[in-house]
Amino acid sequence: MISTPNLPERLAAVVGPAYVLTDPADLAPYLTDWRGRYRGDARCLVRPGNTQEVAAVVRLCAEAGVPMVPQGGNTSLCGAATPDGSGAAVIVSLARLNRVRAIDPLNNTVTVEAGCTLASVQEAAQQAGRLFPLALASEGSCQIGGNLSTNAGGVQVLRYGNTRELTLGLEVVLPNGEIWDGLRGLRKDNTGYDLKHLFIGAEGTLGIVTAAVLKLFPLPRAQITAWLALESPRAAVDMLARTQANFDARLTAFELVSDLALDLVIRYIPGTAKPSGPAPWYVLCEFSDGGSEAELRGQVESWLGECLEAGFIGDAVIAQSVAQAEKLWQLRENISEAQKIEGISIKHDIAVPVSRLPDFLARADAALAAAFPGIRIVAFGHVGDGNLHYNLSKADRQANDEFIACQPEANRIVHDLVHSLAGSISAEHGLGQLKREEILRYKDPVEMALMRSIKQAIDPRGLMNPGKLL
Amino acid sequence: MISTPNLPERLAAVVGPAYVLTDPADLAPYLTDWRGRYRGDARCLVRPGNTQEVAAVVRLCAEAGVPMVPQGGNTSLCGAATPDGSGAAVIVSLARLNRVRAIDPLNNTVTVEAGCTLASVQEAAQQAGRLFPLALASEGSCQIGGNLSTNAGGVQVLRYGNTRELTLGLEVVLPNGEIWDGLRGLRKDNTGYDLKHLFIGAEGTLGIVTAAVLKLFPLPRAQITAWLALESPRAAVDMLARTQANFDARLTAFELVSDLALDLVIRYIPGTAKPSGPAPWYVLCEFSDGGSEAELRGQVESWLGECLEAGFIGDAVIAQSVAQAEKLWQLRENISEAQKIEGISIKHDIAVPVSRLPDFLARADAALAAAFPGIRIVAFGHVGDGNLHYNLSKADRQANDEFIACQPEANRIVHDLVHSLAGSISAEHGLGQLKREEILRYKDPVEMALMRSIKQAIDPRGLMNPGKLL
Repeated sequence: MISTPNLPERLAAVVGPAYVLTDPADLAPYLTDWRGRYRGDARCLVRPGNTQEVAAVVRLCAEAGVPMVPQGGNTSLCGAATPDGSGAAVIVSLARLNRVRAIDPLNNTVTVEAGCTLASVQEAAQQAGRLFPLALASEGSCQIGGNLSTNAGGVQVLRYGNTRELTLGLEVVLPNGEIWDGLRGLRKDNTGYDLKHLFIGAEGTLGIVTAAVLKLFPLPRAQITAWLALESPRAAVDMLARTQANFDARLTAFELVSDLALDLVIRYIPGTAKPSGPAPWYVLCEFSDGGSEAELRGQVESWLGECLEAGFIGDAVIAQSVAQAEKLWQLRENISEAQKIEGISIKHDIAVPVSRLPDFLARADAALAAAFPGIRIVAFGHVGDGNLHYNLSKADRQANDEFIACQPEANRIVHDLVHSLAGSISAEHGLGQLKREEILRYKDPVEMALMRSIKQAIDPRGLMNPGKLL
Repeated sequence: MISTPNLPERLAAVVGPAYVLTDPADLAPYLTDWRGRYRGDARCLVRPGNTQEVAAVVRLCAEAGVPMVPQGGNTSLCGAATPDGSGAAVIVSLARLNRVRAIDPLNNTVTVEAGCTLASVQEAAQQAGRLFPLALASEGSCQIGGNLSTNAGGVQVLRYGNTRELTLGLEVVLPNGEIWDGLRGLRKDNTGYDLKHLFIGAEGTLGIVTAAVLKLFPLPRAQITAWLALESPRAAVDMLARTQANFDARLTAFELVSDLALDLVIRYIPGTAKPSGPAPWYVLCEFSDGGSEAELRGQVESWLGECLEAGFIGDAVIAQSVAQAEKLWQLRENISEAQKIEGISIKHDIAVPVSRLPDFLARADAALAAAFPGIRIVAFGHVGDGNLHYNLSKADRQANDEFIACQPEANRIVHDLVHSLAGSISAEHGLGQLKREEILRYKDPVEMALMRSIKQAIDPRGLMNPGKLL
């Protein structure tokens, strides 16, 4: 290791002095995550302007033996972009790599730099008459490099897949400062190990993603949104299978909402109201098509009519306008916000096989009610992905404060059950700092050893985003 | 390395003497590929009966320092399952691991062992009312373990993706004999590096895939097949984009056929005839839906009518029955067979961005015609995947024999052009022995070094399928 006191100056020589922050006041926003859960320290933050500069920054840090923390929009829910408290790290911000490099409508691809916000990628696609389907609450500020590094999910995974499935090629600066140009836009390419999948979801621990070739899709011309009332999660899972049999990929969202979750939204979010008769569970579903809206509407109406008659669903409301559809989506999208207004809660982001969702809910609800009398469970999520957000609190504020202290016990109950159902304790959000220890309880040691051998092969000195994921 | 003369006996002690072949006559069919292009030698072939036995076999071979060649249905087009000539290797046949372990229609997954034939996986899905969409010419004999190890493609990739996209989980015996149980059936799981993608497409060089969890889809209830006549590849690419804009995922196949390719089929395959008026190019397309066939037929008819009127296509024939649809598919599926009857040819399996397919065809045709006067080019393939089978020969048998000797020069022209168009010299078939040297001309050294470091991390002694891929 060479001496490092002049590292900020050497970095400034590469990227320009304006793009190296060392003043604690300037640095502060980058040293904590947006939920304020983690706080760290850093030598400096550096903002390279292109891939070559990222590579030069990485080479300088690597020569100095200094750890690097890549940071995009800093919207991680697991502290994956927050440095540790040692102050040893350099934060590498990708914000200036924000160009759309190319768009190829006939190949259905867009080539973007890591610092593009998700919204700007969506916009570039739309301007070319195409859809980039990844959609998240934080899309205005999260960056595509972060989406790639955490394999972000969202509400359209049912039809289009996670970020991983939306990616054809990557450009990555490796821990030694070399650039891997894997920016291929091919649907088929069987010429060796598929390296891009190593970096997607690696949370910056194997290198810094600087650009990607992403898949585009035709823009749907018709969309029909419907709200269904259901007796149980089992009814929702059955209804999903039936509806997919009829509509296949034209069913583009199928979101579960519990009555309790809906109640919170109605209570705290102005202008909201129950769209249907009351029921213990609801599903917000969306159908999309490239053809005529009238035709799609007719098919959805007749299908939901059949299901009502057969008793598969208790009620169904079909939005008659874009405004009505947006009202329905508001009910789903404001659950987290409503819950936040009411107070703090213990959150889970779990997945199980779709067929076991009802089992998970029945058993988790029962075990938690037994362990924590008076517990309030707000469950909602993506039925088709087997992915639930499963948030726990108590109605009374003081009781809730005591309950929050029981997070480890509550996690244990939920995660052990998820594991026994062959599920995942982090479906969408990654491990970051938050679940890095917790995962050791559940991952097969053979898998952990494989992961460590990959890390050792690509980042032998452990300089890339230390303390995250592994 | 310990002494190995008694290895067959020690393997027999694990799997039973009936499942170790050492007699040269018994071994012969496993020492060559089905096209007879490669011929190797082996110590013995061993047929373990389950994953534990595979692990025990691998441990014994690893202890003895003996290389292993995993073999499925032995249908590789690149010699990936054929041992080298040294006679040092043990062939590990997966044929006895042929159970469907589980099927979960509500989760849309099937868990199968590596030795299941592709056809048996399709059948198991169908019996559960689901579709497993991977479909290949060799589906009756190829095994799913081989499909996984080569990331097999086929005609439905447009809608459903390659084998990689169809896989949720894997079980793999690692080079040290440990078993990695990654048999998860989850649509979302962000808990570390996605290891399954390392083994998919690795051609057995990182371990032996013993089982997988695969995605299932709703069985289409309606299918409409159509044959289009077109002026040019450009017209085909444009027609694909337009048709996808209207039908999105309901367009499930879009196969290009040149007039010359069709001529060969008509000449050599009994009972075939041109379905439409003559044109330089044709497209076979298929539309699938979960709804009513009459409705889908109406939509396809009116769409193709519009396209005829607008001059986007020159002619269109819509199959009026399953038998007629099969007749159309025969024209596409018999191209390789017809070509084989006529004589030997130089084959390519290339991919370029879809938008550059017309450019590739124009430039490759011109360069080859200049280099080899009288050359006959048979081009066909998967427009939506940018993947063409591009086969070269001469009509006259003697001229053809001379031409075949020019394979290196022909490959150079085709592959250099593919590379300059950011394409792939092996879209579907893998590298195996066939393109292991050729790829070094085109792969970025950074990428080769990354691949080698992965190989070194997982198989440091290089015992898994040596001489393939890397």
